[in-house]
Amino acid sequence: MEKGSKQWRFKERKDLTFASDLTIRGMLKKLNRAIDATDPRPVIQLGHGDPSAFPCFRTSPVAEDAIVDSVRSAKFNGYAPTNGILPARRAIAEYLSSNLPYKLSPDDVNLTSGCKQAIEVVLSVLSHPGANILIPRPGFPSYEALAAFNHLEIRNFSLLPDKDWEIDLDAVEALADENTFAIVIINPGNPCGNVFSYQHLQKVAETARRLGILVIADEVYERIAFGTNPFVPMGTFGSIAPVITVGSISKRWVVPGWRLGWLVITDPNGILKETKIVESIHGCLNICSDPATFIQGAIPKIIEGTKEDFFKNINDILRQDSDICYERLKGIDCLTCPHKPEGSIFAMVKLNVSLLEDIDDDIDFCFKLVKEENVIILPGITVGLKNWLRVTFAVEPSSLDDALGRVESFCQRHAKKQ
Amino acid sequence: MEKGSKQWRFKERKDLTFASDLTIRGMLKKLNRAIDATDPRPVIQLGHGDPSAFPCFRTSPVAEDAIVDSVRSAKFNGYAPTNGILPARRAIAEYLSSNLPYKLSPDDVNLTSGCKQAIEVVLSVLSHPGANILIPRPGFPSYEALAAFNHLEIRNFSLLPDKDWEIDLDAVEALADENTFAIVIINPGNPCGNVFSYQHLQKVAETARRLGILVIADEVYERIAFGTNPFVPMGTFGSIAPVITVGSISKRWVVPGWRLGWLVITDPNGILKETKIVESIHGCLNICSDPATFIQGAIPKIIEGTKEDFFKNINDILRQDSDICYERLKGIDCLTCPHKPEGSIFAMVKLNVSLLEDIDDDIDFCFKLVKEENVIILPGITVGLKNWLRVTFAVEPSSLDDALGRVESFCQRHAKKQ
Ligand SMILES: Cc1ncc(COP(=O)(O)O)c(C=O)c1O
Ligand SMILES: Cc1ncc(COP(=O)(O)O)c(C=O)c1O
Repeated sequence: MEKGSKQWRFKERKDLTFASDLTIRGMLKKLNRAIDATDPRPVIQLGHGDPSAFPCFRTSPVAEDAIVDSVRSAKFNGYAPTNGILPARRAIAEYLSSNLPYKLSPDDVNLTSGCKQAIEVVLSVLSHPGANILIPRPGFPSYEALAAFNHLEIRNFSLLPDKDWEIDLDAVEALADENTFAIVIINPGNPCGNVFSYQHLQKVAETARRLGILVIADEVYERIAFGTNPFVPMGTFGSIAPVITVGSISKRWVVPGWRLGWLVITDPNGILKETKIVESIHGCLNICSDPATFIQGAIPKIIEGTKEDFFKNINDILRQDSDICYERLKGIDCLTCPHKPEGSIFAMVKLNVSLLEDIDDDIDFCFKLVKEENVIILPGITVGLKNWLRVTFAVEPSSLDDALGRVESFCQRHAKKQ
Repeated sequence: MEKGSKQWRFKERKDLTFASDLTIRGMLKKLNRAIDATDPRPVIQLGHGDPSAFPCFRTSPVAEDAIVDSVRSAKFNGYAPTNGILPARRAIAEYLSSNLPYKLSPDDVNLTSGCKQAIEVVLSVLSHPGANILIPRPGFPSYEALAAFNHLEIRNFSLLPDKDWEIDLDAVEALADENTFAIVIINPGNPCGNVFSYQHLQKVAETARRLGILVIADEVYERIAFGTNPFVPMGTFGSIAPVITVGSISKRWVVPGWRLGWLVITDPNGILKETKIVESIHGCLNICSDPATFIQGAIPKIIEGTKEDFFKNINDILRQDSDICYERLKGIDCLTCPHKPEGSIFAMVKLNVSLLEDIDDDIDFCFKLVKEENVIILPGITVGLKNWLRVTFAVEPSSLDDALGRVESFCQRHAKKQ
C-alpha cells in the first residue's frame, strides 16, 4: 500500500496552527534555534517567563518537602474531585482572603492545571457565537490564541506607556457593545511590569459595571510587587462588578512546571452563581483534565508553610534586577523604558529603529541580537506592540548586567553613523 | 447596589452543563450522596475507575521514588516544551515500541495531562463544522461529552455482547459517510472488560482504510490483560490505516491522580504528518496546559525501573477478582454477565428488571442498592446501555466478595414472588 495513494477524510485545522504561532513559546523556540553555537559566551535568556532555573530563584524547600510528603503518603494517587480537593481549596481561599475585604469560601475556589487552564476554562465557558472580549494590548498572547481557538472575537484596548501603563478606559467604553461579555486585566502586568493603583482598579470595576460585563483578573503575578504601588487584588471590587480571578503558584513560588493554578469566583453578590456561570464552569472542569492530585495534596503545606523571608528575598532580587535594567537601558540611545518596572518580571522597552542602521524592526533586532550576542529578548510584536521589546529581568543580577552590556554594544555597533 | 438589579451581558453555556451531566464523575457523585450514613457496614465502591486507594493496588515504590528524586533535583520546576521533555518521550517511545512491529521515535510521542487531555486534543484537533465521529456503545462517556463540547456529531456503533463485545463492523460501514473522520476503539475495554483479538483489530484497520478514516485507539488499559487474548496494540496495524494511540500511566501504574498521559502517532506511513494533522496537534498542545514537568522528569525511571513483578501481581489480583465477579454473578438470577472480563477492571452485566418487583431500571437499581446495601455500582445508562450495570471489580478480593454478597441479597429481597 503506497503512501499517499489513498484519499483520507480527516483534515488539518489551520486555525490551530495559526493560534499556536501567536504564542511566546513558538517565538522563543525560533529564537533559540538562531543561537550561534560557536560563540563561547553563555547564552543569556531575557525572553522567558520562567526564572526557575536560576539558583537565586530556586523554590522554597518547604514546597519541595510538601510534594515529597504528599507523594510518600500515597493518599493522593487517585482522581480528585472536579474542582479540586477540599484542603487545597480551603488553603487557597484563606490565602487569597488575607488581602480582600471579605472572606472567600473553599467553594469559590476551583483548582486548575496552572493559570493557563483557568484561562482556557473561563474563555470556553463564556464563549458564545458572536461574543467578543476586551483584551489589553500589549498583553499575554495566550488570551488571543485561546480566544481564536474558541472563535471569540477579540477587541484590543491599549495600555498607556505614558500613564504608567494604565488602561485607556475611554477606549474600553468605545470598544464594548452588547456582545461584549468581559474585560481581561493582568495585574501585576505582563508584559509591562506595572502595578495598578487602588483607584485605577476601582475605575475598571465601575466601567465594567456600566458596560454590564465581568472582569477577568489575571493575577498570576500576585504580590510580586516591589515598587510604590502595593498589589491590590481586583476581587476587592467584586461587589461593583463580578470578578473571576485566575492565578497559580507558578510565579510567586517559582514553580511554573508544577501546573497548579486556580479559578476563583470573587463575586460577593453571587451574580455569577445566579446567572449560572458558576455551574457552566463546573461543567467545563468536569470534562477537562485536572492538576495532579498529589500536588493538590501538597498545597496546604506549601501555602501555610512558606516563610515570608522566601517571598521577601525574591522580591528584593527582582527590585535589584529592575534597578539594573532601568539604569542600564538609560545608557542605550535607541531603547527607552517609559516606566520603571515595579511588579512581575518584565519591562517593556521602546525600540527606535530610526537610530539604527540595518535593523528593520523588533523581530530583526532580536534575531540579530541572538546571533551576535547570544542574548535572547522577546520582540514586542509577540505581545502586541511592534518595535518594542519585552525584557525579562528575572535572572541572576550579574547575568542581567552582562546581558544588557551585550545589548549596549550591539546597539552601538548598529547605530547610524552621524 | 442591589443583587440582581442590573442587566449583565454574560450568559451560561447550557451545553457545558449538559455535557458534564454525561460524565461518570457526575453520576458517582449523585450515588455517593445517597449513601445511608446510619448503615454500620463499610461502603464498597464498585463504580469507580480508580483502585488506587486499595492497599493491594498501591503503586510501585519505584514510581514514588522517581517522583521524589525528580522534585528534589530541582531540575524540573520550569515549563516543559510543548510536546513534553525529550527523556520522557524517548522512554515512552521505547516502552510502546516493545510490542509494535516497528520502532516509534520520541517525536511520535506527545505528553498530555492524562489520557483525558489526549482525547481532548484529538477531538478538538479533528473537529470541523459538520464532521462526525464513530464512537462505541457501550463506551467511555468522556468521548460523548468532549464531542458535544466540540460540536462534533456522534455516531454510535454497537459492541456485541454475544460476540465477546467485538465491534459490529457492518454497522460501522453503514454509519460512516463522507463527513466521518475517525473511529474510536477502547482496548482493553471500558466498560466491557474485553480484549480484542489480533484478527479483529486487523479488520478494524481494514474497515478504517476502506472508509478513509483514522483510528483513535484508547489504550489507557494497555497490557492489563489477564485472560486468553493477549493485548495487541492497535498501532500494529498503523500501516493499514493511520492510528492515533492515547494512553497514560494512570491504570497500569495505578496512579490516575498523577495526570501523565500520551498522544502517540502510530502511523508508519506518515499520513498524519503529510496531511498536517501532526502540526495541528502541536498547535493545540502549544495553547493548552501541560502535565507537571517534574512528573515528566520521573517518567524514564518509572518506566524503566518498575519490575515485571509489580505488573504481574496487579494482573493476578485482577484475574482473581474477575473470577470472583463472574462466579458470584452466576448465582444471581436477575443479573447476567455475557463475557467473563479478561482485561481492564470492569464487567458489563445485564439486568433483567422483569424478574424484580419494584425496580424500574438500572438507575433505580443502583440508587436503591446504595441506600440499602452501601454498595455503589454504575448504572449502564451512564456508559450507553440502559438496564445494564458496569461493575468495577478492581477492589480487594474480600471486599468484592462481600459486596457481591450484598448485591445478591438485595436482588433476592426485590425478586418477584413466584
Ligand atoms: C499573564 C499570565 N497569565 C497566565 C500565565 C500562565 O501561568 P501558569 O504557568 O500558571 O499557567 C502566564 C505565564 O507566563 C502569564 O504571564
Ligand atoms: C477508556 C478510558 N479512556 C481514558 C480515561 C482517562 O484516563 P486518564 O486518567 O489517563 O486521563 C479513562 C479513565 O477511566 C478511561 O477509562
